[in-house]
Amino acid sequence: MVNFNYSPVTEKVLEDLALILGKQNISTDEEKIESYSRDEVAPHLWKEKHVAEVVCFPESVEQVSALMRYANEHRIPVTPRGAGTGLSGGAVPAFRGIELSFEKMNRILDVDLKNLTITVEPGVVTSEINRTAASFGLLYAGDPCSGDASFIGGNVAENAGGNKVIKYGPTGGSVLGMEVVLADGSVSWFGGKRRKDVTGYDFVHLMVGSEGTLGIITKIVLKLMPLPAYVVDLLVPFKDIPTAMEFVPRIMLEGKVTPSSIEFMDGAAIRLAERFLSTRLPCDDAEAHLIIQLEGVDRETLSDDLERIGDLCLAHGALEVFVADNRNTRDKLWKARKSVAEAVWAYAPIQVANEDIVVPTSEVPELMAELDRIAREKSILYVSYGHVGDGNMHVTLYLEGETPDWKEILEDGRLELYRVVRRLGGTLTGEHGVGLKRAEYIPMFLDEAQIDLIRRVKLAFDPNNILNPGKIVPWE
Amino acid sequence: MVNFNYSPVTEKVLEDLALILGKQNISTDEEKIESYSRDEVAPHLWKEKHVAEVVCFPESVEQVSALMRYANEHRIPVTPRGAGTGLSGGAVPAFRGIELSFEKMNRILDVDLKNLTITVEPGVVTSEINRTAASFGLLYAGDPCSGDASFIGGNVAENAGGNKVIKYGPTGGSVLGMEVVLADGSVSWFGGKRRKDVTGYDFVHLMVGSEGTLGIITKIVLKLMPLPAYVVDLLVPFKDIPTAMEFVPRIMLEGKVTPSSIEFMDGAAIRLAERFLSTRLPCDDAEAHLIIQLEGVDRETLSDDLERIGDLCLAHGALEVFVADNRNTRDKLWKARKSVAEAVWAYAPIQVANEDIVVPTSEVPELMAELDRIAREKSILYVSYGHVGDGNMHVTLYLEGETPDWKEILEDGRLELYRVVRRLGGTLTGEHGVGLKRAEYIPMFLDEAQIDLIRRVKLAFDPNNILNPGKIVPWE
Repeated sequence: MVNFNYSPVTEKVLEDLALILGKQNISTDEEKIESYSRDEVAPHLWKEKHVAEVVCFPESVEQVSALMRYANEHRIPVTPRGAGTGLSGGAVPAFRGIELSFEKMNRILDVDLKNLTITVEPGVVTSEINRTAASFGLLYAGDPCSGDASFIGGNVAENAGGNKVIKYGPTGGSVLGMEVVLADGSVSWFGGKRRKDVTGYDFVHLMVGSEGTLGIITKIVLKLMPLPAYVVDLLVPFKDIPTAMEFVPRIMLEGKVTPSSIEFMDGAAIRLAERFLSTRLPCDDAEAHLIIQLEGVDRETLSDDLERIGDLCLAHGALEVFVADNRNTRDKLWKARKSVAEAVWAYAPIQVANEDIVVPTSEVPELMAELDRIAREKSILYVSYGHVGDGNMHVTLYLEGETPDWKEILEDGRLELYRVVRRLGGTLTGEHGVGLKRAEYIPMFLDEAQIDLIRRVKLAFDPNNILNPGKIVPWE
Repeated sequence: MVNFNYSPVTEKVLEDLALILGKQNISTDEEKIESYSRDEVAPHLWKEKHVAEVVCFPESVEQVSALMRYANEHRIPVTPRGAGTGLSGGAVPAFRGIELSFEKMNRILDVDLKNLTITVEPGVVTSEINRTAASFGLLYAGDPCSGDASFIGGNVAENAGGNKVIKYGPTGGSVLGMEVVLADGSVSWFGGKRRKDVTGYDFVHLMVGSEGTLGIITKIVLKLMPLPAYVVDLLVPFKDIPTAMEFVPRIMLEGKVTPSSIEFMDGAAIRLAERFLSTRLPCDDAEAHLIIQLEGVDRETLSDDLERIGDLCLAHGALEVFVADNRNTRDKLWKARKSVAEAVWAYAPIQVANEDIVVPTSEVPELMAELDRIAREKSILYVSYGHVGDGNMHVTLYLEGETPDWKEILEDGRLELYRVVRRLGGTLTGEHGVGLKRAEYIPMFLDEAQIDLIRRVKLAFDPNNILNPGKIVPWE
């Protein structure tokens, strides 16, 4: 069904690419290729080595268009790439070819105060968008933990989630439109500066999360909204995970408020973060911590919300409620939360499996109980943290010490965990994407009819299968 | 490219359908077929008569699946249908065949208080979902003007908008998952009771707004959220349309609040509504009225918001600010707003063109000025109203008295209006859908590459092109 007979990047191809992009915008330097062929999935976890043949750095949509037309004619795979902060191998070139970096397309093109939009190129760093919006008193709601490094293009391609999904939705919830270069080099616009649009299919949100397999995004129109004037974070320790998990659904249902975040760190996660940052957080011997973020247009309402939610916490097993209402304390708290992944990376041994599972929020307590059971039965250690408010949990399974069969042990634990997730009505990935890392597990979560549809839609967009081939579903 | 060689519904087919659905669930009664082959587009506006050959009333997903398998094998077109409140001919059977009504699949299956979801069959009336959610202190945010009659299945298929899009997004913003019967009868689930999900392509939101051309939706999981405790509406008359339009963007930017609605009625619309409902609204001689709806968790904040927004209105040309803060006054106000379409229908002559255009909100003032110019130049009358907060304006162009060439005159005005909309970065339809009515105008708004993609994605889902054929893009 699918053509994987790609052409190699010959000297002739390199010459042609240099004509299209300019000599300064292509590189065959071995180290550079090596580093641009990675994301944050540790290379030792891949079954084989994945390295592009050339890295390209386009500067304009015209260059991207000409490059795609050429690659399509010559059957050369193209793997688009943001900042390389991905966690699923989405930007890893599974079939060699061209690695397409967007670091030179990094301009904020337009902040539109009448339409409350910001239009950007894909290579803009996410937090630059947050800051720019804030400087106009506006909010861009995307907030992935990697926001200080990731590119918005990657956020859109992966539909990055992060810390504010419960209130604002994932990245896709902020995307109103995009300029797209299709596989054959033609340029089209999906959506625009419009708050409503049912003219044709919703290709905007089909593109969001499609991991660079359907087209190359070259401009993005993002929605802005009024910046909440007051924000407060609660750090709420609980003695154990079940008590914390049972409490979570009460926040919205009984607290009558939609927080902007409900985050979770287990004891191991918080202690790793402390060690990584050389800092201390209150009650760090508790086995579960929630961070609850509330926003308000005025101070008094927020105080009321705060008191109501605080009381609710204490009535349901919280050991304490710490209020972070100034920037310093809030920054410290979020720095800890956002550093967990990096801290795990820094201290956990190389024998790891990083998960991004999702279950209906009601099932989080059972998921956590099952995780604990699996870990004990199989003598696996784990750290867990994540976006508990939307049921998206990051679990790192790992082994301590030297074990020759560590891959098999962790794989066994991973599969058992996936079976639990499936039984609970959950799914494989909430925000990191399927990419190359998870494609083999897709048949556990999507039926054959849907997998077949994914392949057919992919080929409807990209008949020669040159756009980031080998991703999302099993192809072989 | 596309097969339109369909088989007729013969006696044998009717017998087979009776076996699949039960005799009581199919009808060939002429009057019934005639009435189920319509939506709210006046039949006299179609270029030819569109009538199905049989109406089917499935009671279960198993029946829908068996029916689709049969129709696919026998190449019989299937047009799914909600309550028939559509405004684009989406449910009109362009190629005859089977009209598939969901009125018997009308159960609310599950209200899940832990996950804040409600799961429904497609034939549930929209406002029943709003009421059910409210009875648990929860909000279902979908609020199309036709909500007391429309089915949720139709809302999802058209991505219905309505009055609260500015704060909550259109119907699609509330859809977390769906059970879908594909063209060949296979049954799949897209999404589920999950707040985050990037496992595969976002087929949930591709289905939303796809007008029944990609699959048949048989169950829908909708997101709920805490019901705002306090709601207040402001009715704000302005002396003329430009003053009102120039004011709109200030509400969010300077007022620092995202209202749940910003609606607009011109003087003609408000006076038509008054006549239709035999009622009076304040300041009904003003040429522009805004309805601004604010929500809050507590009364004091809402008072503060109210005062701030009220002052802002008065500082920018509002003639008066009327506050509707009790249910009776609010109901009266919204009844007027929601009845405009029906009032136009009741009193405007049959020589009409009902539009659903969208422009970036900043361009609404120019759109309205251009509309007025076009109407004057071509001696066309108009009523305008709609969801000005998200740039989605309903414009009814009409002629008074008898004019033999009324179709040409209105078509001329319509095309001129579309050219303006296109120039302003707008689009053809914001919430009513393309359907049969607007397919011919698609090439004015989408480029050839995108139209081609729409056709290819359609055929990836439905290779025999039996699902609601002839809609969304021109096919011939």
